[in-house]
Amino acid sequence: MENNTFFEPIQEQLAQVEERMHAQAREAHPNVQAAIQHLISAGGKRIRPALGLLVGNMLGGQSESLVTLGAAVELLHTATLVHDDLIDGALLRRGIPTLNARWSPAATVLTGDFLFARAAELATETGHLNLMHLFAETLAIIVNGELTQFFAERGAINREDYYRRIYAKTAALFEMTCQAAAIISEAHTDVRESMRAFGRDLGMAFQIVDDVLDFGGEQRTLGKPVGSDLLQGLITLPAIYYAEAHPDDPDVLCLTGNHFYTEHERMERLVESVRRSHAIQSALAEAHQYIQQALARLEPMPAGPYRAALENLAAYIVQRHI
Amino acid sequence: MENNTFFEPIQEQLAQVEERMHAQAREAHPNVQAAIQHLISAGGKRIRPALGLLVGNMLGGQSESLVTLGAAVELLHTATLVHDDLIDGALLRRGIPTLNARWSPAATVLTGDFLFARAAELATETGHLNLMHLFAETLAIIVNGELTQFFAERGAINREDYYRRIYAKTAALFEMTCQAAAIISEAHTDVRESMRAFGRDLGMAFQIVDDVLDFGGEQRTLGKPVGSDLLQGLITLPAIYYAEAHPDDPDVLCLTGNHFYTEHERMERLVESVRRSHAIQSALAEAHQYIQQALARLEPMPAGPYRAALENLAAYIVQRHI
Repeated sequence: MENNTFFEPIQEQLAQVEERMHAQAREAHPNVQAAIQHLISAGGKRIRPALGLLVGNMLGGQSESLVTLGAAVELLHTATLVHDDLIDGALLRRGIPTLNARWSPAATVLTGDFLFARAAELATETGHLNLMHLFAETLAIIVNGELTQFFAERGAINREDYYRRIYAKTAALFEMTCQAAAIISEAHTDVRESMRAFGRDLGMAFQIVDDVLDFGGEQRTLGKPVGSDLLQGLITLPAIYYAEAHPDDPDVLCLTGNHFYTEHERMERLVESVRRSHAIQSALAEAHQYIQQALARLEPMPAGPYRAALENLAAYIVQRHI
Repeated sequence: MENNTFFEPIQEQLAQVEERMHAQAREAHPNVQAAIQHLISAGGKRIRPALGLLVGNMLGGQSESLVTLGAAVELLHTATLVHDDLIDGALLRRGIPTLNARWSPAATVLTGDFLFARAAELATETGHLNLMHLFAETLAIIVNGELTQFFAERGAINREDYYRRIYAKTAALFEMTCQAAAIISEAHTDVRESMRAFGRDLGMAFQIVDDVLDFGGEQRTLGKPVGSDLLQGLITLPAIYYAEAHPDDPDVLCLTGNHFYTEHERMERLVESVRRSHAIQSALAEAHQYIQQALARLEPMPAGPYRAALENLAAYIVQRHI
């Protein structure tokens, strides 16, 4: 399957999104301009802008505002990644050196802040105050999610915590993007609500698949060991399914007893157990359920190339593991 | 002189600002809530909210929106201080341990981000899209100023750089606050422009006086050595005046030759030279000029307790050195 057909009807708009993003480096110190250009060029798939453009086009929204929204959302995402990489001490992202691998923490913190400011400026340029409020609220949700994860006990197996975490980490921004696209398109309240739920469901599926890929999919993030989340005491959905099915596995007991820091061999064995278990399929099935829910939200929407592309995008999200 | 009479007509509103600020910790992780409450309670003089309230009251603005603006501006200021203290490795602010003195860099970065998000939410709650845009733009200016300072050559004596730096560091937020208060009050364009200039002039004066105080005023920041800016190669207005009057002083030459890192004794002597020179008075005279300009902007404004309080506030700014 060619996964990326959903980019086709919006190629021109996506190029405009890139342009708008690059333009945000304006007026910054030359070193910062260079760093931001580098960050933006290093890429990412632009799933979030694509989502906003497709939803907005489907609902007849004004193209310029949708492009602005796309740039705002992707810059916000980039800003959170810059601070994340600093916090995690990550030296590579998508195989390319992170900002903090080359710069001091001071410059990295401030560059992230600068990107937040520019993202917020773009959000206001869409001309919708409630969109801007949503945007700020979403940033608070994302950051609070990171703080909660930071302070959370490691090794805890808790489904509710997991869903809350992936909502904050990924689904909140997908949700906001789709809802904002509906606001720009001046859609009715029930359509806005539908698109909000559509975005959230896609985001939940997206993060579950990411968490499955951490256990060894082909597109696993470069440079990370298989099961890196679990090795760091971060329990994702596959591990939750495994632990629920094997509550007496001594490796699982060791995990919840918070010994994972010292018991590295046990943890590596647990990663293997999860990989070979039915837990991976169960987690993927759950991602599929979210996608089914999302597709159901699309059904009453105007048919045409944009709805079709959104259906492709939804399918792509769960097929990344193939 | 009792300096703080300008708080009198807005005491009730300032209490509401505190309340609004504290309420922004809602929904955060309990540790983060506690940290934010601590940060807010640690205080500051609330000059920025006071400025917005007085300008807005003078122009007949709606109280609730002005209170919201005050909380937004002070939270933005607090967020930038949290990141600044992290960057500088500062352990004390206003004699109280900073967040990064007690927390990891990760938690400190994220708490600053959370405050940015909440400040932006508050700014949208004022209900003015152009105010929100101004708010985001001001954050970009502040952060870019810090980045520029970070990358700047130390020991450089340059008036233009100095004015740009103190504009970004302090005057931009004063400016934004006064302009935003005029926007909330739905003042005419020329009044908005006047209040923008009024805020900028006050902010320039405020920072110049701060820079003079670094050379030994009574209200000098706790725990910093006299002339700490100069000792770190940061050239402020008193040092600029001194260098212009004594271009051949070998200590000045040493400074521009970028030897200040190794020549600590020379730098301490230079601090003493500046202190005992006319440069301090020249810098203060310049602050007074800014205040005079600011007061002239007030003249056409509606007379009454709020304009009188703004005049007191302006006088207070330059009298802090006494």
